[in-house]
Formats: sequence, C-alpha cells, structure tokens
Amino acid sequence: MEKDNLLEEYLEGEVILEGRIIRVERDSVLLPNGHVSTREVVRHPGAVGVIAVLDQEILLVRQYRYAIAQETLEIPAGKLDANESPLECAKRELREETGYRGSMEGVSTFYTTPGFTDEVMHLFLARDLIWDPLKPDEDEFLRVERIPWDKAVQMARKNLFKDAKTILGILLLQGQI
Amino acid sequence: MEKDNLLEEYLEGEVILEGRIIRVERDSVLLPNGHVSTREVVRHPGAVGVIAVLDQEILLVRQYRYAIAQETLEIPAGKLDANESPLECAKRELREETGYRGSMEGVSTFYTTPGFTDEVMHLFLARDLIWDPLKPDEDEFLRVERIPWDKAVQMARKNLFKDAKTILGILLLQGQI
Repeated sequence: MEKDNLLEEYLEGEVILEGRIIRVERDSVLLPNGHVSTREVVRHPGAVGVIAVLDQEILLVRQYRYAIAQETLEIPAGKLDANESPLECAKRELREETGYRGSMEGVSTFYTTPGFTDEVMHLFLARDLIWDPLKPDEDEFLRVERIPWDKAVQMARKNLFKDAKTILGILLLQGQI
Repeated sequence: MEKDNLLEEYLEGEVILEGRIIRVERDSVLLPNGHVSTREVVRHPGAVGVIAVLDQEILLVRQYRYAIAQETLEIPAGKLDANESPLECAKRELREETGYRGSMEGVSTFYTTPGFTDEVMHLFLARDLIWDPLKPDEDEFLRVERIPWDKAVQMARKNLFKDAKTILGILLLQGQI
C-alpha cells in the first residue's frame, strides 16, 4: 500500500529479553492505516570494522563465528564498549586483533540489517600501520591473515567472503588503495 | 590469542526468547583454551534483497524502519516464509513491493552480521521487468522510487544509503548494468 505518511508510532512497549550484549524490546505501534501491530527490536550497542592496509595488503582475521557455526575471514571488528566512541573502538579493536595501530579515517556508516535491529556499523580505513600490540581478549581466538589488496577485491566480487561488512568495505574502497 | 583450532564447541543451551520472527538461544560453549563461555545467538529465517532494474533505473522502496526510527531507501527485500526458497521469496517480495516480476539471477549470499545472528541474505538481480502486481501486505507501507542506475552507484559510494544490503548490492553490480 502506498502512503504519504510512513511513520509507525510507538504506543507502549516492554523489554522481553535483557541479554549480555543485546536487549530485545516488544512494542505496540500504530500503523499509518490506523491498525495496531507489534514490532520486536533487537537493541545492539553498535560496532566498528577496520579496513587495515599495510604494504598493499589487507589485514584480515580468521575466526570461528558461533552464530553461523563456521569460520569466517573478516576485517577486524568489534562492539562499542560503554561510553566508547567509534574511533576509539576502531583503534582498540585493531590493536587487540592484529597488533597494529595506525591513522584512522572514517569510510562509511550503515545499519547492518534494519528490519530487526538498530545495530549501526562504523567502517574505518587504517593506514601508516605501526606494530604496537594491545593485550588481546584471552577468550577471543583468531588468526591474522594478510592478503594482497587486489586479490581481496577479486574475492569480494566473487562472493568468497561471507560477511557483509567485509564485502561492503572492500568494494567501497576499490580503486582507492 | 592465535590458535590453530578456532572451534567453539556447543555444551548445552536453551531458548531464552521465542519471538514472532526471531528466536534467541543462549548456549554454553567450550573455547579452544578450555574455558567455558556463553554465546547468545539470534536465530532468523533468512532474507532476500532484489536489485531490480528497469530502463537503466533501479527500483527502490522508501519505508519507515521502526528498529532505527527513521525512513530508509532500500532495495526491495523481505524474510523467507516457512518452506520458501530464496528464489521464490525474491519473486514474491518484488511483486508485492513494486508490482513487477522479471528474470531473477543470483548475485551474492552473505551473513548480515555474524557476530550475533545467523541471518543470511540472498541478493538477486531482476531484469526484463513486467508489470504484474501481487496484493501487497495490507500492514506494510512503502513508496516505490526509481533512480537512474549511475546515480544510485554514486549515492552508494557517497554513503547516502543507510542500509548495508542496498550499498553492497549496488557496489557489487557497478559496471554490469
């Protein structure tokens, strides 16, 4: 149905799950046609991803993703801590996961899947990398892999990565590295 | 910590939320270092998105996304119904949301945000579009907008879309439309 007014108006709501990272809310909303419906929203603290380039190679991390029961090769990434800015988070995650710090430039900000969650992803480009490791999270397991930038672009185009932010970030910077 | 073995092994788990669309599970897992940790996973039925091109214009839908409390301009998309294939879903969603049907070609499959959900997104390219509307969902409100393909590519590159699948899909097909 096409309408001028698309707004769904909050009527009342409750928290139906308080998780360790996510919180799920169930709200009653007033639709543009006057109907009342229900919206379940997964609240998320937000996250960053870092396209880190060293000597024309991208630094990727191989890790086991429990949610999808398989290993992935992704750009370094992580969730925002409380009161942490996206830039601070990007610097911390890059050092924790790869051992490098560098110059950071904002590349893109987007919603990962706005149909059911407010998770926002901030992508950064890191260059001028210097080895300066931070103590990694002792319960996080990953392997750093370096791939020539042009090969990574081809892998993104051929759907050889499984992770949206990794594909999106590499495609966005194609021709600029 | 770098390890050869990255696997996180399921020990036991429970469903902690049975939502209308999502289900949240909380599992105990055995980490590679022998520690036991907790993983919360949002189970999702999976979804499709369709890059639909007519006369060198892309068909986009403007809609209110309650989870992020704002309007977005996105490619037509939707969740898989029970026992529905991604291709069937793509055909249905395109007709429901834009009124068109066309040839469908698989473009990419990826996980939207594998840190906390198993949601998988199947992207299709629809061409040879014919007007053949399906009755839309009466509680779904959207406006179809047509944008020249080259302009959509520029908008994706300039971060003017907010939705990951829309940016990714357009960038992936840059130069092929």
